Amino acid sequence: MKEMVDSALSEFLSGGRSLLYESMAHSVLSGGKRFRPLLMISTGDYFNVPREEILPFACGIELIHNYSLVHDDLPCMDDDDIRRGQPTCHKAYGEDIALLTGDALLTLAFEVMAGAPENRNHPLRKIHAIHEISRGAGVDGMIGGQLLDIKYSPKEFSDQKMDELILKKTGGLILASVSVGGILGGISAEKMSSLKQFGRNLGLAFQIRDDVLDFDHDQPDGSSPRPNLAHRIGLDGAKARLKQHIEKAEEALSAVSINSERLRFLAERLLILKEEN
Amino acid sequence: MKEMVDSALSEFLSGGRSLLYESMAHSVLSGGKRFRPLLMISTGDYFNVPREEILPFACGIELIHNYSLVHDDLPCMDDDDIRRGQPTCHKAYGEDIALLTGDALLTLAFEVMAGAPENRNHPLRKIHAIHEISRGAGVDGMIGGQLLDIKYSPKEFSDQKMDELILKKTGGLILASVSVGGILGGISAEKMSSLKQFGRNLGLAFQIRDDVLDFDHDQPDGSSPRPNLAHRIGLDGAKARLKQHIEKAEEALSAVSINSERLRFLAERLLILKEEN
Repeated sequence: MKEMVDSALSEFLSGGRSLLYESMAHSVLSGGKRFRPLLMISTGDYFNVPREEILPFACGIELIHNYSLVHDDLPCMDDDDIRRGQPTCHKAYGEDIALLTGDALLTLAFEVMAGAPENRNHPLRKIHAIHEISRGAGVDGMIGGQLLDIKYSPKEFSDQKMDELILKKTGGLILASVSVGGILGGISAEKMSSLKQFGRNLGLAFQIRDDVLDFDHDQPDGSSPRPNLAHRIGLDGAKARLKQHIEKAEEALSAVSINSERLRFLAERLLILKEEN
Repeated sequence: MKEMVDSALSEFLSGGRSLLYESMAHSVLSGGKRFRPLLMISTGDYFNVPREEILPFACGIELIHNYSLVHDDLPCMDDDDIRRGQPTCHKAYGEDIALLTGDALLTLAFEVMAGAPENRNHPLRKIHAIHEISRGAGVDGMIGGQLLDIKYSPKEFSDQKMDELILKKTGGLILASVSVGGILGGISAEKMSSLKQFGRNLGLAFQIRDDVLDFDHDQPDGSSPRPNLAHRIGLDGAKARLKQHIEKAEEALSAVSINSERLRFLAERLLILKEEN
């Protein structure tokens, strides 16, 4: 499934001779687990969404994720030199090109999604899916989370703000990945509500797992520059929260009656989260 | 018509308490002629597109235009301090917030367009319109033009590259403004071809007019840092080109048989172009 996503991304990025296609490919095709697209396609599989219909949306969300990395790496943000073992986009191409590369990836995401094959029986689903993804990526989703991330020092975070940060910054696209699978599959409002419950808890679990893995044992009191739940409430506390969100995610899945073979991937993801912690 | 656009933009930007809504409003609501949205709505009027259906697209294209200004003003691009008589976004809020503000405006544009009222008789038109706008804003449109603008010094430009720059950087969104009016109005492929011809020539005329107005009489040999057609081929040559594109635009309009009262605005635009030069 990952090869399918990689190959589609590679095709979308081979569109022309512009230097921007080169810098976009540098940023997107240099690796990446493709967690969000795989999550979306797996969810879509369960609801019988044809692969060719969902693939452009899966690529779209990965392009959006990658634009956010390119902009996050810029000197005015995290100022990172290396990403996935390679020079970051601005180190390789300069800040101006990196800025445009991020802009181009975000724009291409919507071009790719709007250009997805049409399901003539359900044309509105595609529009709803684009709407859902733009919301997950926007001020009330990912970008809103990035704002919290840069505007507050870890010490300024209340418990509530910490959850808001995670739900938006990481959770925004993860929730959208899951719900787009349901939207394109035309599921009921009731099932959608449970599916979103799953997506929200998966997003929280995903980020808390990262925080646990990033925990600095030498400085347990939390002098990390960015908010980290494990530094904030302690490693054991964070692990307990992780377990709690995984359980809630599984509970929500059973309410959508997601127990099919097809969703093996989702289950496996959850198992990986369990094993590693 | 401009009040309608301004008021809709203002509503879209009053969505929440995030600092980003403030910085977006600072950038978008501080002025602007709203040329692109007015052009789009006027074209839509001619093809009987209900105003409530086209307004979100008109706002979307203005949000995209404004994100490009916010990012263009950043230190790694033009490094401008003042825009529309006010501090630029990064001067008022800092570089990191300005970067996110541009990203948020671009994302919001697609949220607003995907959230436009549905025409249940023609749901696909909305998807085609989103596709058209993403193309006009992307690597083969506006962003591609910005790349040409920063990568080449004026002396390196061939005539062909100069036309490509204008057609993409300025023309990308202007062409999309016109063609979306036709798409939402469901016009024939033949008329669309003439309408696009109009849009392309209007885009060229629009930028050449700017170049003529920006012409520096003290340095007629073209030492401006950015490519300017009037410096490149001389003021008289540029004025002749302007006239030529206005005539071609009018020709194309008559092929779409656009002579209605409704398109007075388009005609007026062209007249303004004529009068001022």
